[in-house]
Amino acid sequence: MSRSRSFTSSVFIGVSLDGFIARTDGDLDWLTSRGAAAGGDLGYQEFIDGIDAVVVGRGTYEPGLTYDPWPHEGRHVAVLSTTLPIGADPRVSVHRDLDDLVRDLEERGVKSVYADGGQVVRAFLRAGLIDEMTITTVPVLIGTGLPLFGPLERDIPLTHLSTKVFGAGVVQSTYAVGDRPE
Amino acid sequence: MSRSRSFTSSVFIGVSLDGFIARTDGDLDWLTSRGAAAGGDLGYQEFIDGIDAVVVGRGTYEPGLTYDPWPHEGRHVAVLSTTLPIGADPRVSVHRDLDDLVRDLEERGVKSVYADGGQVVRAFLRAGLIDEMTITTVPVLIGTGLPLFGPLERDIPLTHLSTKVFGAGVVQSTYAVGDRPE
Repeated sequence: MSRSRSFTSSVFIGVSLDGFIARTDGDLDWLTSRGAAAGGDLGYQEFIDGIDAVVVGRGTYEPGLTYDPWPHEGRHVAVLSTTLPIGADPRVSVHRDLDDLVRDLEERGVKSVYADGGQVVRAFLRAGLIDEMTITTVPVLIGTGLPLFGPLERDIPLTHLSTKVFGAGVVQSTYAVGDRPE
Repeated sequence: MSRSRSFTSSVFIGVSLDGFIARTDGDLDWLTSRGAAAGGDLGYQEFIDGIDAVVVGRGTYEPGLTYDPWPHEGRHVAVLSTTLPIGADPRVSVHRDLDDLVRDLEERGVKSVYADGGQVVRAFLRAGLIDEMTITTVPVLIGTGLPLFGPLERDIPLTHLSTKVFGAGVVQSTYAVGDRPE
């Protein structure tokens, strides 16, 4: 299932206990308020320091445009989108499909990719491109919203690496993809 | 949202990391094999010892009929179902709706209810009838299946009580329903 490639890909994302990464309208207050109450950065800085490229879909890229300053200075950003104009933003590369994206990341010599947003996480998982996932669960059920996971062609076994409990009841677990840690 | 009642209700259930309690056809091998590999009973006996009534839907009741001996000897079993004939099984009471079920549990003097199966968990959560949830997550994504959670009229905040990591990467977290533990 996994394809040969020169980089590793990781997920670092927050979810409700019922598995949503945002409300249907994109609202994240239920998540960010609880993340802030947990104290600290929940390991984000340590995670992102090891990353040299971020891959997002249009649904994650566009809300990110409102951040000032641009949060990914010094790190390559690739947008996987069938609709975003290719030259829309000189700070990012735009890719119509996974093959084009993977080829481009390899040509850039990328070693460590952050796969962010539900669309990219699902596409990467289905293509066998994810190596590790850190899922931070906040203690709330929101009922409906944008899901993290989606349909698969076959089961994906995981290996549990660690679980940490932060303040405000935030629980963070890290898994390697596959039956055994590498 | 919660209704006044004389009993508490708890959930004790296993899920895949993507939130399913069974495959679409009811298969549980992906769950039970990992639960067994974790070693021990994952706290089930201690949980069930404190329970005096089990509430299930028809989808959980009927597969349970294949167990020999009947696993709920000495404990009242109520089936919440719009289709199961009322007198189908002398060992259980059958209830067409939540009001009838709650009234019957109170008349029986039930103090501690185990709400089991996705249908009952979702109905109880929507009705404000759940006090505590122990969710045991096994390290696999199965992609599709029967979900534990479903739509809600409003957010349900939870209070994290504990997290335990068992063998085979099984992670079990217990939450109280509501913003503060009672």
